[in-house]
Amino acid sequence: MTNINLEKKHAGVAASELIDDGMVVGLGTGSTVDFFLKALAERVELEHLSIVGVTTSFKTAARAQQLGIKVLDIDDAPMIDITIDGADEVDQHMNGIKGGGAAFLMEKIVAKNSKKIIWIVDSQKVHEKLGQFPLPVEIVPFGSGKLIAEFATQHLYPILREKDGKPIITDMGHFIVDLHLETIDQPHELGNYLDRRVGVVEHGLFLDTVDEIIIGTSHGIEKIKRGGFQKF
Amino acid sequence: MTNINLEKKHAGVAASELIDDGMVVGLGTGSTVDFFLKALAERVELEHLSIVGVTTSFKTAARAQQLGIKVLDIDDAPMIDITIDGADEVDQHMNGIKGGGAAFLMEKIVAKNSKKIIWIVDSQKVHEKLGQFPLPVEIVPFGSGKLIAEFATQHLYPILREKDGKPIITDMGHFIVDLHLETIDQPHELGNYLDRRVGVVEHGLFLDTVDEIIIGTSHGIEKIKRGGFQKF
Repeated sequence: MTNINLEKKHAGVAASELIDDGMVVGLGTGSTVDFFLKALAERVELEHLSIVGVTTSFKTAARAQQLGIKVLDIDDAPMIDITIDGADEVDQHMNGIKGGGAAFLMEKIVAKNSKKIIWIVDSQKVHEKLGQFPLPVEIVPFGSGKLIAEFATQHLYPILREKDGKPIITDMGHFIVDLHLETIDQPHELGNYLDRRVGVVEHGLFLDTVDEIIIGTSHGIEKIKRGGFQKF
Repeated sequence: MTNINLEKKHAGVAASELIDDGMVVGLGTGSTVDFFLKALAERVELEHLSIVGVTTSFKTAARAQQLGIKVLDIDDAPMIDITIDGADEVDQHMNGIKGGGAAFLMEKIVAKNSKKIIWIVDSQKVHEKLGQFPLPVEIVPFGSGKLIAEFATQHLYPILREKDGKPIITDMGHFIVDLHLETIDQPHELGNYLDRRVGVVEHGLFLDTVDEIIIGTSHGIEKIKRGGFQKF
């Protein structure tokens, strides 16, 4: 196993230990979350935990069911007790960028309906400032060319996400534009600007959202909680 | 012809006279716009106008083509010179509610890309304050039950728009929730609240958007421009 995968596994396994019997658990999307799902499925089987998952993508829904984790639609589930999700980039203020996997709209909706949110990441995701990872913005296909032109005028360096020469379509039927910003000095101002744009469904900035970040290391984990680093 | 239809026709015909040869014209949606489209198509045929339409719904696109008006996709068209659209309710400050026809997301995107915006309405659409007409909000289906519950908690009186017992789906693949508010005292604050909600794609409040409102009357038209009423 490569070092990065080992880090992801450490983070994923540590998160699985936070799940208690009877919980409604938000299940994120991505490769780190996959380690969490496997570890959780093991606990469900060995300890006969009765938990229910609420998924953030069609991919995670399929994966959870394959692993024997019961899944409910968000609107059929009560309030989510805890959500375990990955992130593409986090800073020391516990803000982050999500959306490499194009599932951030559903991830944000699940996060919004969760009592507690934990992110699991490998050590390479932690940066001083956000922006090295391109910021994804989910937009309505109609008029997207005009909106992307506006982003370019605003020096947001937009690139429409494509596959085989065609725009990729999210689970919710939208396009993704990645803003190649390098550094985001004012994430809240940028978030407000994007929230107000007509045609923007959602953006990948998750600000003041997460309660705890578990960072996998080659030997174990570190945690960022509100108030600073904690080493384990 | 009923009185209301006569008013709509007066407004629609008056708007058709604002179109010049060579213009790119945003074409709204609804019954008043239909009178405009017919009057415009007549002018195109009789005066050999060379204009291009950018439509705000699949319905208007089909109707315009049926009437012989050339239609371009918004992303293939240059900046729109003028957009003629209807509204479900307008106030004296030239703010309005749109969305009875569920096309307001595309209408807002077209408006955003227009140099000039004119609304055409019958006299019953003009109210002192907005809110008698239920405010439509376009939302992502995923998690919509939770979002509607939040709106109810906020005393926004949400009702999911349905047909034959199923949620209606917009041209862009979303649900519509109508907020039965009766009176909107602070439209800008409400708009900001809705803009920031995760899962809200767009809302039907059009604030500080329109340049001129043409109100059809039984005998002719009246206009609201920035600065007050004008009678014709």
